[in-house]
Amino acid sequence: MKTDPAHRPRVLVLGGGFGGLQCARALAGKPVNVLLLDRHNYHLFTPLLYQVASSLLNPSEISFPLRRVLRDRNVRVRLAEVARLDLAGRRVHAADGHVFDYDWLVIATGCDTNFFGMDSIERAALGLKHLPDAMALRNHVLSCFEAALLENDPEARQRWLNFLVVGGGPTGVEYSGALCELFRLALPRDFPDLDVRQSRVVLVEALDRLLYDFPPELGEYTKRALERKGVEVRLGTRVTEVEDHTGVRLADGGRIGARTLIWAAGVKAAVPPADPPLPLTPQGRVDVDENLLVRGQDRAFAIGDVAGALWEGEPLPMMAPPAMQQGRHVAAQITRALEGLPLEPYRFHDKGVMATIGRSAGVAALGRLRLKGFIGWIAWLVIHLYYLIGFRNRLIVLSRWTYNYFRLDRPIRLITNSGVANKRATDSSSSP
Amino acid sequence: MKTDPAHRPRVLVLGGGFGGLQCARALAGKPVNVLLLDRHNYHLFTPLLYQVASSLLNPSEISFPLRRVLRDRNVRVRLAEVARLDLAGRRVHAADGHVFDYDWLVIATGCDTNFFGMDSIERAALGLKHLPDAMALRNHVLSCFEAALLENDPEARQRWLNFLVVGGGPTGVEYSGALCELFRLALPRDFPDLDVRQSRVVLVEALDRLLYDFPPELGEYTKRALERKGVEVRLGTRVTEVEDHTGVRLADGGRIGARTLIWAAGVKAAVPPADPPLPLTPQGRVDVDENLLVRGQDRAFAIGDVAGALWEGEPLPMMAPPAMQQGRHVAAQITRALEGLPLEPYRFHDKGVMATIGRSAGVAALGRLRLKGFIGWIAWLVIHLYYLIGFRNRLIVLSRWTYNYFRLDRPIRLITNSGVANKRATDSSSSP
Repeated sequence: MKTDPAHRPRVLVLGGGFGGLQCARALAGKPVNVLLLDRHNYHLFTPLLYQVASSLLNPSEISFPLRRVLRDRNVRVRLAEVARLDLAGRRVHAADGHVFDYDWLVIATGCDTNFFGMDSIERAALGLKHLPDAMALRNHVLSCFEAALLENDPEARQRWLNFLVVGGGPTGVEYSGALCELFRLALPRDFPDLDVRQSRVVLVEALDRLLYDFPPELGEYTKRALERKGVEVRLGTRVTEVEDHTGVRLADGGRIGARTLIWAAGVKAAVPPADPPLPLTPQGRVDVDENLLVRGQDRAFAIGDVAGALWEGEPLPMMAPPAMQQGRHVAAQITRALEGLPLEPYRFHDKGVMATIGRSAGVAALGRLRLKGFIGWIAWLVIHLYYLIGFRNRLIVLSRWTYNYFRLDRPIRLITNSGVANKRATDSSSSP
Repeated sequence: MKTDPAHRPRVLVLGGGFGGLQCARALAGKPVNVLLLDRHNYHLFTPLLYQVASSLLNPSEISFPLRRVLRDRNVRVRLAEVARLDLAGRRVHAADGHVFDYDWLVIATGCDTNFFGMDSIERAALGLKHLPDAMALRNHVLSCFEAALLENDPEARQRWLNFLVVGGGPTGVEYSGALCELFRLALPRDFPDLDVRQSRVVLVEALDRLLYDFPPELGEYTKRALERKGVEVRLGTRVTEVEDHTGVRLADGGRIGARTLIWAAGVKAAVPPADPPLPLTPQGRVDVDENLLVRGQDRAFAIGDVAGALWEGEPLPMMAPPAMQQGRHVAAQITRALEGLPLEPYRFHDKGVMATIGRSAGVAALGRLRLKGFIGWIAWLVIHLYYLIGFRNRLIVLSRWTYNYFRLDRPIRLITNSGVANKRATDSSSSP
């Protein structure tokens, strides 16, 4: 099937995350013209985002320029913020006024932090979902120690040293573990005048165990492992109110005096505005049929976190593996359609779940296999290195992990904003 | 001389640049308590700043956490913005209200970009002096190419692709060379739809040759070498006016349509407010005597860029080597004073000057030795690696240079601000 390259069917992919990127790559060399739109010029390897936020990795080590990954003749990248989908007219309006026409649309816009409508928390909390979040969090956490050093009132100082992480999923578990190690292993040498051991990391989870999507015994193991590292784990409660500058109130009546609230308690599908509006599942994700077509549409697919694909009657988790599988699946379906073949339904291949609990401990449930402790940690390292894009990045990240393991050091301890004190989290005014 | 550590003389060092850092390190282990104040929590290796701004190095590779360099028992670091010096009361007021008392003061506050009072240029131009400057510039330059891609009007597109560098000193020379190589070697593969060769880098210098502080033949060689790389060099003219969105006017009547104006045309001493005000030289630097004491003071030294030390009747250049020498000298003088010895005058040791002109070319004047071309480049590499702080940083930077040299690649091509379009330089509104 030979067509003039300029008149090939146009595939428009919205988003360069795991799903969108896999889809665009799988369409490389096929008789279509692919255009990928993203707000950012990089693909972000979100599973390692918490390591940027804890001063271990550089942003460039987990972000890969999209233009470098997608160098195929028939694939193009444009930086754009999607403003509105016109499904009937088969075009997408960008925020800057540009319009992109398509023959096939792939909605892969991912997800955002979900504050569940609690404005006071949204104003006060730091998220951990996008690269600027991680950089802001790194700056903030280091600034808290600087501010504590200048604070004479013991109670006020303690509030700078208390860090509240909300959400006991993989992000909350991994970040609270990494934070505790940063405080116990790397910072004491930096702050000889401060009793860094007074710092507290409190992990709050509304459900009755950590890592709810994992087998129960791994959640329980994770709790014990975090506690051994110094994290205070509070299950079965949630944050109900944020008090400016002083702390948060919990549903169980407790109160934690902390200036820092890190929100890892949920994400929501980043559904783009559309005309007509996109159909949604009860969970607020784009409703798709078994072929991953947006329900009621025949040229628009939705994949990854933004899509509410079902498997065995349940919505698929918002994780990288199903997004990547769906990206490749949709690419194959578009190719089939061009060849006049009927679409095939998407089948989920469960790759399992895994999380780290700081140095030397991890948990993984891969099919019937359960790993924990050192072997779970090694499995996590190997898998994450494998999926990280780029040989050089793998090499650099591996060398940083090795260095960190033996030297207990966190090399990227830089505050790269204006430098003085903290402007975010529960400190909404400027004075410490 | 044994003293109770809590009652040792207090040395307050303002600034953790080359001068302040050397001074604090030289006082490690001496019978004084040293407190170093800085706005930032890192020491910045400014000679390589242009490589961050041209997507070659990570910020963390040229910024070293001050708390990690200064781990001596008698040296402390505080993050603070200096608001006012009270020389009579021997104390320093910080912007956040904290007050720091001293017995000896070392003013090492460095310098800032000098716009010579031209407000329209200050609003429009991007500087290249501090780490946030370099990160903003990297984001901006990459965003210009993204914006050019979306621009249909050829003239408007060309304005995104024209880059004007003002100032023919080492910073302007090094950055315009690096920029041209980024455009010629790394970006064409990223932007197959754009004729990247249409991009222009214009270097404007008011004097009649580049690198005015270097021997004339090296300045002439540098001009030829830059032109071979594709930089347009315009000598003997200067920017007189910035026209929003469209370009700049030159004193020679010329006009350059460019959205990007990079200002490397001068720096000025960052003299802190003081009561009484600090005495200044005609160049606006702090006036010091031959011992580097602030004129009229007996407990306050000033060193480095902020200080107007004379040598053979001429003010010393604002460069790292004299700052480092002065930092060590002042540390020695404070030690002498504590031992009851008289102060010794500072003697400048000329280490020469050097600059790179992109890959494989450099110039250096070391005493009577003149180096240029490949050997000048190698000399530059070796010296800069030697002075960079930290074994790991040296290793990483060396590996990046090697990779760049053989692969012609710039790995850190990330736009880490909000991601869409350019909000700085001659584009003060939001629409492209």
